[in-house]
Amino acid sequence: MKHLINIESLSNDEINQIYSRACEFEKGIRKSNHSGAHVANMFFENSTRTKMSFEMAENKLNINKYDFCADTSSLNKGEDLFDTLNNLSAIGIDTIVMRHTNDELINLLAQKNYFNELSFINAGSGKTAHPTQALLDFYTMKRHFLNLSGKIITIVGDIAHSRVAKSNIELLQRFDMIIRCLAPENLMGEKIDGVHYYTDLKEAFENVDIVMALRIQKERIQEQIDFDYYIKNYQITKENLPYAAFLMHPGPINKDIEIKSDVLLTQNARTILNQAKNGVYVRMAVLDMILASKGL
Amino acid sequence: MKHLINIESLSNDEINQIYSRACEFEKGIRKSNHSGAHVANMFFENSTRTKMSFEMAENKLNINKYDFCADTSSLNKGEDLFDTLNNLSAIGIDTIVMRHTNDELINLLAQKNYFNELSFINAGSGKTAHPTQALLDFYTMKRHFLNLSGKIITIVGDIAHSRVAKSNIELLQRFDMIIRCLAPENLMGEKIDGVHYYTDLKEAFENVDIVMALRIQKERIQEQIDFDYYIKNYQITKENLPYAAFLMHPGPINKDIEIKSDVLLTQNARTILNQAKNGVYVRMAVLDMILASKGL
Amino acid sequence: MKHLINIESLSNDEINQIYSRACEFEKGIRKSNHSGAHVANMFFENSTRTKMSFEMAENKLNINKYDFCADTSSLNKGEDLFDTLNNLSAIGIDTIVMRHTNDELINLLAQKNYFNELSFINAGSGKTAHPTQALLDFYTMKRHFLNLSGKIITIVGDIAHSRVAKSNIELLQRFDMIIRCLAPENLMGEKIDGVHYYTDLKEAFENVDIVMALRIQKERIQEQIDFDYYIKNYQITKENLPYAAFLMHPGPINKDIEIKSDVLLTQNARTILNQAKNGVYVRMAVLDMILASKGL
Repeated sequence: MKHLINIESLSNDEINQIYSRACEFEKGIRKSNHSGAHVANMFFENSTRTKMSFEMAENKLNINKYDFCADTSSLNKGEDLFDTLNNLSAIGIDTIVMRHTNDELINLLAQKNYFNELSFINAGSGKTAHPTQALLDFYTMKRHFLNLSGKIITIVGDIAHSRVAKSNIELLQRFDMIIRCLAPENLMGEKIDGVHYYTDLKEAFENVDIVMALRIQKERIQEQIDFDYYIKNYQITKENLPYAAFLMHPGPINKDIEIKSDVLLTQNARTILNQAKNGVYVRMAVLDMILASKGL
Repeated sequence: MKHLINIESLSNDEINQIYSRACEFEKGIRKSNHSGAHVANMFFENSTRTKMSFEMAENKLNINKYDFCADTSSLNKGEDLFDTLNNLSAIGIDTIVMRHTNDELINLLAQKNYFNELSFINAGSGKTAHPTQALLDFYTMKRHFLNLSGKIITIVGDIAHSRVAKSNIELLQRFDMIIRCLAPENLMGEKIDGVHYYTDLKEAFENVDIVMALRIQKERIQEQIDFDYYIKNYQITKENLPYAAFLMHPGPINKDIEIKSDVLLTQNARTILNQAKNGVYVRMAVLDMILASKGL
Repeated sequence: MKHLINIESLSNDEINQIYSRACEFEKGIRKSNHSGAHVANMFFENSTRTKMSFEMAENKLNINKYDFCADTSSLNKGEDLFDTLNNLSAIGIDTIVMRHTNDELINLLAQKNYFNELSFINAGSGKTAHPTQALLDFYTMKRHFLNLSGKIITIVGDIAHSRVAKSNIELLQRFDMIIRCLAPENLMGEKIDGVHYYTDLKEAFENVDIVMALRIQKERIQEQIDFDYYIKNYQITKENLPYAAFLMHPGPINKDIEIKSDVLLTQNARTILNQAKNGVYVRMAVLDMILASKGL
């Protein structure tokens, strides 16, 4: 594995390998040391959780890490970023963990032969892909259910703008889960074959095994969303959440918008901190596989 | 010792243990390795000295350190900070070094059972507490005088707004020092039992062993302070500083305001850089004790 | 070697020693471990390339590194910087890598006996000196040509404002290179003995071994420069660059201003990424020599 750009570019074998390697890291039966690796974290969008999670994974693997402070003003032309990356590669950086608002940029950078020694890991790109989030969600579900085939997941919220939803749908369909999306029509986005779409919560939650709530990005989409309407019809509450359902959320949660606060104190919500915990093991597995393929 | 929140929460035994452990670090006879520990430095107020001092202590103990850039805009509600801390705990952060403008927040966070695996170290909270500063001041005095009982210290300057003064008074009273506070009435603040208050410098400096000057926080309190008046009546000069007095200051110094520049070239002022040096050993001791109690 | 302030302060022996030590690092036949060293990187001007290059060098030598975020507002008086440096020295920082807009400051700091334990490495000062850049340029040329005596180099661009040009001229004259400067009159600056000045590109490029283009600092000097005129008369193109000439540039390049884009795809331009690569070895050599002299 040279890059991690999106779920589409991973084979099922690779996904299973990431899963089992992350398991070994969690159980402490795999130790890897990549003290010869030099990884730059380039976050062009704000991030606390994903960035700290990658930093933790890097530290646990003894990787040399570099914090690239994205001064957007000196890098506002694509051309300059190419030059910067060439330069980083020349000084000895081997891997770039990148988050960017642009949907296609990271994919483009990874394809360019120009940087033939750099590996790229997508830490979130635009509204399209967040592969390490989908992989940690997959890991969290599979660790609990073991076999995901036939399990029903309902993804609820702003599907249209969510890279988390897109990467999860791509990944979970491959492992034969039944995927439902629940949202008001204007947050539904383009429909994907094989996915079941609902506008009614009660129907969407029937017999569900997992409910995955998405973050409503208040700051971005306020003109599109009627919060009172959303809360009334789509907020997850103790009353509407099935008793045994596994509740997931990529964080940070807008409390009392997508999920009512008191739900977070229930057993169902324990999964959410497990997602955070598992993210470190999954990112260790991804880094470990990529760096090993480079002989580092 | 699970947390370091304020001097009040430390027993005299713990203070003596911090002292002797810091001594061992200074003399090089104690080596500790905490390469399994993950500490996040969260400074919500600007800091160069205290932050660099903690980073040095962390490096010397082989701790994995994380720089949490406090983007105040995304964390301006207490609720969000709780979630962030839960998340950091979930990904594997074990200890938080925090500076915050709020007087009570760090104490509150440490008490919340919610984060039952996180330890907190207060690196300065509001106008109330700066326990590592008081501990390093204590260390610096005790290393020189060995027995502090009966020694006279005069704390001079903006007592009212100073967390350094408050933590020092709490600590030094316990070890039977005679504590005098010198300030103009409007900078005196609430009076504390057992402390002697002066508005006249000459009286306050009589037979004094130690003079501890505080930083006048020009930026914060300019409407309250008449600088000409302050300098004329309270500035420390070669003339008014007793010959043998030990001069201390937490830094950074406003030269020619609280202390006349030429005093800084005298023997008396050598203590000030010793305070900085000792801060690293004291913070190593605090981290070492907290991490050891966590088995890290 | 205690400091690296400018080329003038280096003996030819020291320059040769830096060269050979960098060679050993490049070839992997020298390994140095400075895990007891504590180096602060203080960049008061924006920098990606030089800063990342120093960080890479520091990591490869196992140095503890500290990122000093230059908050210019709290450090806008020279006096305060002196205090900050004294404090950093007191807490255990041993070496400062500094970039600053002021031409004389770093030199002044290094001379002040006050900081008698701190070493300074100049990472670019004002318009005057950028010694590690000149040393890496020297390294890159000498690795290729082995003997530089009699070789002809043409430095082209904004000579007047370039610290890269000044440090290179000082260094390359010592090793008996023939140095030509090419620029429009208003970008020529003060003339230096022994250097040949040209305003005509064709003459300046005749029989040249090396062409070193400088960055036109658009943001700084726009009132002084007529870009159309510059491009027409001084831009490096496939047509005017001699076939065998070694093309160098300190980066980042303003494409299609100082160099036409398509030139960057030629063999001649391969040197530019070599400069970046070599910068790490040269900085490792400088750090290694300075830290060894301090017993670290």
